[in-house]
Amino acid sequence: MASVYFTPGPAQLYPTVAGHLQTALDKQVFSQSHRSQAFKDLYKRADAGLRALFNLPEDYAIYFTGSATEIWERSLQSLTAQKTYHLVNGSFSKKYLDHAKWLGRDAQVLQVPFGKGFSLEEVQVPGGTELLAITQNETSSGVCMPVSDIHALREKFPEPLISVDMVSGAPYAALDFSKVDMAFFSVQKGFGLPAGLGVWLVNGRCREVAAGLEGKQYTGGHHSIASLQDQYQQFQTPFTPNVLDIFLLTHVVEDMLTKGIETIRQETEAKAHQVYTFLEESSLFAPFVQEKAHRSPTVIVADVLEKPAAEVISLLKKQGMVLGSGYGASKEKQIRIANFPAIFEQEMDTLVKALRQL
Amino acid sequence: MASVYFTPGPAQLYPTVAGHLQTALDKQVFSQSHRSQAFKDLYKRADAGLRALFNLPEDYAIYFTGSATEIWERSLQSLTAQKTYHLVNGSFSKKYLDHAKWLGRDAQVLQVPFGKGFSLEEVQVPGGTELLAITQNETSSGVCMPVSDIHALREKFPEPLISVDMVSGAPYAALDFSKVDMAFFSVQKGFGLPAGLGVWLVNGRCREVAAGLEGKQYTGGHHSIASLQDQYQQFQTPFTPNVLDIFLLTHVVEDMLTKGIETIRQETEAKAHQVYTFLEESSLFAPFVQEKAHRSPTVIVADVLEKPAAEVISLLKKQGMVLGSGYGASKEKQIRIANFPAIFEQEMDTLVKALRQL
Repeated sequence: MASVYFTPGPAQLYPTVAGHLQTALDKQVFSQSHRSQAFKDLYKRADAGLRALFNLPEDYAIYFTGSATEIWERSLQSLTAQKTYHLVNGSFSKKYLDHAKWLGRDAQVLQVPFGKGFSLEEVQVPGGTELLAITQNETSSGVCMPVSDIHALREKFPEPLISVDMVSGAPYAALDFSKVDMAFFSVQKGFGLPAGLGVWLVNGRCREVAAGLEGKQYTGGHHSIASLQDQYQQFQTPFTPNVLDIFLLTHVVEDMLTKGIETIRQETEAKAHQVYTFLEESSLFAPFVQEKAHRSPTVIVADVLEKPAAEVISLLKKQGMVLGSGYGASKEKQIRIANFPAIFEQEMDTLVKALRQL
Repeated sequence: MASVYFTPGPAQLYPTVAGHLQTALDKQVFSQSHRSQAFKDLYKRADAGLRALFNLPEDYAIYFTGSATEIWERSLQSLTAQKTYHLVNGSFSKKYLDHAKWLGRDAQVLQVPFGKGFSLEEVQVPGGTELLAITQNETSSGVCMPVSDIHALREKFPEPLISVDMVSGAPYAALDFSKVDMAFFSVQKGFGLPAGLGVWLVNGRCREVAAGLEGKQYTGGHHSIASLQDQYQQFQTPFTPNVLDIFLLTHVVEDMLTKGIETIRQETEAKAHQVYTFLEESSLFAPFVQEKAHRSPTVIVADVLEKPAAEVISLLKKQGMVLGSGYGASKEKQIRIANFPAIFEQEMDTLVKALRQL
């Protein structure tokens, strides 16, 4: 009997994944050369689908990397020489900052406590900042930044490139890509695919900045923006990519387009509303994030009040529902419930009923 | 009707891959957290299998990256500060050199023409060289370096770390890992898996050198040897890895161990012998590599003498056999025949018969 994975990544597979995988095996897609026309056609199709799903402006390019973690590093190498500014409120936003420090950047930070979001007035990006790093959805704490706040930061700070980590927010987050410069995600969260692929959305302004830094510093080797763009122009990659994930992503994106991104967003919000409403009423649970506007619709974190969180997780597991544990130090007292598109409304309903009966 | 892929990577899938993939889907392996005990157990099992297959000395560690391309970069970042030395005889050995140059290393090179190997007397590694980069099997030209030559280089040059690119030679190449310091491969060649995973075998001496460079330079961020080792000690990875490929690798390695690596080597040599014997007798084809000791058993490159190579490839394709084209500028006049463990003796027999009848 299959379980339902409410884990925040790796996560429940999108319902169509197994079928697409069988099609790819039947067609021997994974034996095809990554320099073949068949691969170029696949990349082109992935590109078209992602452009439609995210409503990308014309000047965006789409690159593939080994992981979103790698994009933290590559974006800093190709787009910055000195000054970066990071909004940090959890483990993943902090990792972007760590990468900047490892690379020797003058990395400024606005840090707020775990479980908190940012108010726009607090954010003061110094002049000369090359890149403003925003984590749209903190997978560790369940805090999101409303896309309207991200858009407002663009108005307030036109100078720095704005980089948006939307690893656990895509494709739900209705980001206006004309108001940021790059964004990225990995496929094992909201797209419900096996892990092993990072997707990097990069606008023309980034490519100009990257071109200006070429030859002046190490910009990322085979995965510099210059090298990725050079290959992208023929729908190729600088290395042998994870063709399996690119194939699955292409087809799942098309499935999502068929369903409609607006429908996916509405369903996501309805499921999230159901869970948060229950958490507020419950005596055993409470929403961890206090500020309603900062509560993530895609990764819901709850305090467990009267039992060890592990007991809750264990009880649900016996009923075929796998919850995420709290991140790091919060493991003992929190649970995380991913509300990705792969989770049916019916499944979330069953989960909430089960939590209610604990 | 399925084709047989004699392409040098992505290549024919190992015969058991589809079955293992179905098992993983049934067990929901791709939804499991990469921080779970289940993943640690998987990594541990992959580690045990690879140790047995390669007969690794105790002090080796095994890391996973996004690709072998990435290992070119990471090995240079973590193991060298200044001087490297590269044996270059094709496109892939040159790429390792390119990475060293991009990273600003003083990269010395011994370069011989495409299609040639190295004689040991030519190799003169200067004192102070930190890393000697050897490509055990040049996928572009079909030239291999016999493992006995690699072992002799260790005797001759005890000082530099010896790094062996065995991307298209593993697991066939019977390298004595006590006589090198690191080696690496990707899984879409000799292991017959979908692309998207690099495997890095690293000895204790490398880890000591890496530790000495930590804090003095950028050693590769999340994929520095220090960071990879830190996670490896708990059978974890610094980022969400390609669990699907790690799962398949684990099981295919176990299948290979059941069959026996000696049997695989003997079969590889028998198949290679059959192809090279045909090429020597043929009036339409000739072995590209003249020096017999340097002819790769795993990637066989042939000149096509009287027709465009594309015509040969097209004719074979109609018979359900997919050959590799010549690499780069050799595309018009060469074919490449991968002789990986996934190719049955019967299939190679059918291929040679078909080539004979052209």
